[in-house]
Amino acid sequence: MPRLEEPLQLNSGGGQAGRRVRGSRNRGRLSRRAARAGGAGQNTHLSVPFITRNVAPQDLLSEDALVKVENAADRILAEIGIEFRDDHETVELFRTAGGQVTPVSGEAWNIRFEPGMIREILKTAPPRFTQHARNPLNSVEIGGDAVVLAPAYGSPFVMDLDQGRRYGTIEDFRNFVKLAQASPWLHHSGGTICEPTDIPVNKRHLDMVYAHMRYSDRAFLGSVTAPERAADSIEMCRILFGAEFVDAHCVIMGNFNATSPLVWDGVSTEGIRTYAAAGQGSIHVPFLLGGAVSPVTMAGMVAQGLAESMVGCALTQLVRPGAPTILASFLASMSLRSGSPTFGTPEPALGSLVMGQLARRLDLPLRCAGNFSTSKLPDAQAMTQSVLSMMSAVQCGAHYILHSAGFLDGLLSMSYEKFVMDTDLCAALHAYLAGLKVDEDTLGIEALAEGGPGKHLFSTAHTLRHYETAYWDSALNDDQPFETWFEQGEEDAMARANKAWKQTLESYEAPAIDEAIDDALKDFIAARKSSMEDRWY
Amino acid sequence: MPRLEEPLQLNSGGGQAGRRVRGSRNRGRLSRRAARAGGAGQNTHLSVPFITRNVAPQDLLSEDALVKVENAADRILAEIGIEFRDDHETVELFRTAGGQVTPVSGEAWNIRFEPGMIREILKTAPPRFTQHARNPLNSVEIGGDAVVLAPAYGSPFVMDLDQGRRYGTIEDFRNFVKLAQASPWLHHSGGTICEPTDIPVNKRHLDMVYAHMRYSDRAFLGSVTAPERAADSIEMCRILFGAEFVDAHCVIMGNFNATSPLVWDGVSTEGIRTYAAAGQGSIHVPFLLGGAVSPVTMAGMVAQGLAESMVGCALTQLVRPGAPTILASFLASMSLRSGSPTFGTPEPALGSLVMGQLARRLDLPLRCAGNFSTSKLPDAQAMTQSVLSMMSAVQCGAHYILHSAGFLDGLLSMSYEKFVMDTDLCAALHAYLAGLKVDEDTLGIEALAEGGPGKHLFSTAHTLRHYETAYWDSALNDDQPFETWFEQGEEDAMARANKAWKQTLESYEAPAIDEAIDDALKDFIAARKSSMEDRWY
Repeated sequence: MPRLEEPLQLNSGGGQAGRRVRGSRNRGRLSRRAARAGGAGQNTHLSVPFITRNVAPQDLLSEDALVKVENAADRILAEIGIEFRDDHETVELFRTAGGQVTPVSGEAWNIRFEPGMIREILKTAPPRFTQHARNPLNSVEIGGDAVVLAPAYGSPFVMDLDQGRRYGTIEDFRNFVKLAQASPWLHHSGGTICEPTDIPVNKRHLDMVYAHMRYSDRAFLGSVTAPERAADSIEMCRILFGAEFVDAHCVIMGNFNATSPLVWDGVSTEGIRTYAAAGQGSIHVPFLLGGAVSPVTMAGMVAQGLAESMVGCALTQLVRPGAPTILASFLASMSLRSGSPTFGTPEPALGSLVMGQLARRLDLPLRCAGNFSTSKLPDAQAMTQSVLSMMSAVQCGAHYILHSAGFLDGLLSMSYEKFVMDTDLCAALHAYLAGLKVDEDTLGIEALAEGGPGKHLFSTAHTLRHYETAYWDSALNDDQPFETWFEQGEEDAMARANKAWKQTLESYEAPAIDEAIDDALKDFIAARKSSMEDRWY
Repeated sequence: MPRLEEPLQLNSGGGQAGRRVRGSRNRGRLSRRAARAGGAGQNTHLSVPFITRNVAPQDLLSEDALVKVENAADRILAEIGIEFRDDHETVELFRTAGGQVTPVSGEAWNIRFEPGMIREILKTAPPRFTQHARNPLNSVEIGGDAVVLAPAYGSPFVMDLDQGRRYGTIEDFRNFVKLAQASPWLHHSGGTICEPTDIPVNKRHLDMVYAHMRYSDRAFLGSVTAPERAADSIEMCRILFGAEFVDAHCVIMGNFNATSPLVWDGVSTEGIRTYAAAGQGSIHVPFLLGGAVSPVTMAGMVAQGLAESMVGCALTQLVRPGAPTILASFLASMSLRSGSPTFGTPEPALGSLVMGQLARRLDLPLRCAGNFSTSKLPDAQAMTQSVLSMMSAVQCGAHYILHSAGFLDGLLSMSYEKFVMDTDLCAALHAYLAGLKVDEDTLGIEALAEGGPGKHLFSTAHTLRHYETAYWDSALNDDQPFETWFEQGEEDAMARANKAWKQTLESYEAPAIDEAIDDALKDFIAARKSSMEDRWY
């Protein structure tokens, strides 16, 4: 197999190609500068505020099958209905819009919707919108051909190789905001990256929102755990962006979970109304574990998810037509051996493809999938599951991909090492979604003609012109020959990731912020904190 | 986040769902039996002799762009030509077919082909064919909607966690044949799974082919390293299958590398002619490292790969019209930091998607991509690269996926642990490619209606009817809660894989073989071995 040894000769010999590639002084300087900033490294040409995809989403189902799924969602809404709890105002909004309200108990109502009614309400929702960042260069587009990547969301624990698993703190939270900000391969600061469990439950939203505002200059998510916390989050945005700007632009979003199956509770719907009334964005995500809170078959999971998410989105339009809103799904399967939820499995990947098609037919932005894993270590299992899940997000055409970095332990833990691995994968996705350009230059016939059959192309004009941007280059992988890797200590990917996040935190520099605004934010937080007793549940 | 804790409650509480799922006595027995045989375990319903895909391949490029790539391939063949070395008969075949032959040196000729000429020759090649296995139940279809997975091919080294990296031996070779045979998630025994370096170079093909015949009852690849070794491989098939059967059916294939750029050497073309003359299959694979033996831009790599592979395929049709032949590509990028080849990167994944489109337009079966990695350990890097690469094979519509299991260290090492990880991924691909079924039953509205909003679906008739087959369940992943995993010793995926391959080898049972045939094979091998001196290079 003479060809198979080609790679070894190339990299162990340190021949002409290696020297030329390494010899570019300009690129070297760029690369070192970027590396110091935890930056784009050799992939600077790929860095963008958000991805504009040149690879079309993949269509899995036929028109006929999609109509069946949509009809099933309509039947669920018309025949079974959605239960709303503890939020009379939401019930009245839907009653006025034509929903058939049946009281279930004191503070619970079942509402049924005629087929097509929810879709009709959704017609005022924007197919694409901008979420503004405090650094205007970092504002993101959500919808259409834009793809926005954000860190994982909601783990009570954090883990790293040195300390293992423990409850998250505000220091961990800040660390992850900094790691995200330092990565050119995320576009959005996310929301509850981990729970800062050392801060009272009723006050931690203030510290979380402040951390996003102070340690990142990207767009982010606000609190959803209580309506007054949602309001605080938006109020802090008014300080940061100015009240008029906030009223006219989306600067914050909330990520709201349905209480599947087929329930929207009052904490969520009040929060959704709070964001929508302020003209801010909201994401409406049924967290579906098949066989537990959803039919065990994927077609049914998707139909239910569509029904639940559409209803959440519709609520925003009843509150403020034109409010930015995002359809969403979170699909999990189950292990038959242990009864545990499983992530990164094939069936949810297929379900995500269908959600993508359904979102395009509704003309709504979609949040879907992410770098999911049930592994307890950033090991081979973690990345097998993650890549399968993340590729489904990419293939399905998701616009906003929460959980793009750090997700481990079935979302119970945020992992420092996994965060670094995931952002490296996110970097690769920048190159993937750039697509493949075909023109005279990229076809490069003259490069082959220059030497002709049997002649290497290292030094052709075509190679020299393109080599700096031809390939994405991992910042984390070890692609060296075995012998070099062995001599350097046989490190695995975990060990390299452990070094990488520490180096990035060390070299992190906070983006500048107007001091008066910073003071006003601190004053607001101090006032809010002193206005209430600590609550720990 | 009340929804997020759902999974934890489900699996740590050991509630109703868990008991029901684990309590199925039939499934339990099946599962244990299958596990003993290194088998399908809880995924028995997914086991098939080859995959029939229900997920359409992904189209990346427009018609217009594809025509440009095809025209570039035609221009390469017409204006630059292919160099043939040391095989006068192949040159005469192409001359007679209309190629313009120009002598380059004593035993080298450049041949240019009018645009369209090679495509015309390829019209007699079958779009789909059967490769017969000695166990007829294991015969595979190659082409169309069939997908066949085979182990990695060609590593000089093997590695495992206990002994690290060392040169492969015939014992390793037999071990991998056994591991492949024991896995329901591969369909084909492959070829040179690793080099048995303890057997003389000129004799090892006999032991390799025998191992495939004796320790597997699946289809396999024969030798290509010399024309007489190709002939020996086919002769052994005549003993195993009967000469008449072999003349009328494809029972063996050879995997031939072009000497890129734009060269086919005589060892390959003589081997191709040997297989084709016997009516046997051949794969024609340019091993393209961009910037080294191919343009550094992906459009050019694909155009060149198409040109080179089409010419190899065309040769088979000149020898014996209708001979089974497989278009192929192997695309690698390069690290700018080290000059090393890189695998599992986004650009080759995109190139594979284009190769898939080109193969469909030619109506030829395609071999493309696989579980590629440059990692030196079966770690997070290994599987990140592998899944990206393997999903590109799946998405591009490859029909025969060599390198589906074991590939590590840039193809220099065959890894025991990675083999197990990869076959687990192959299992997942069975579920993925089964697609998503939409009908009244899978939409499962009655399951939601049974309890209504807010009620779990564990015990619905729908869940009980479907839970055994709803989800693929990894045989290798740990999906348990953190606490359980921690108490059980905090094993990572590598450690589990290490146990898994040993258990599989321990419980391996060779398929039965007719004793007279086995003796005839051994006699043939003994006669061939004694007919020549050992050669070690």
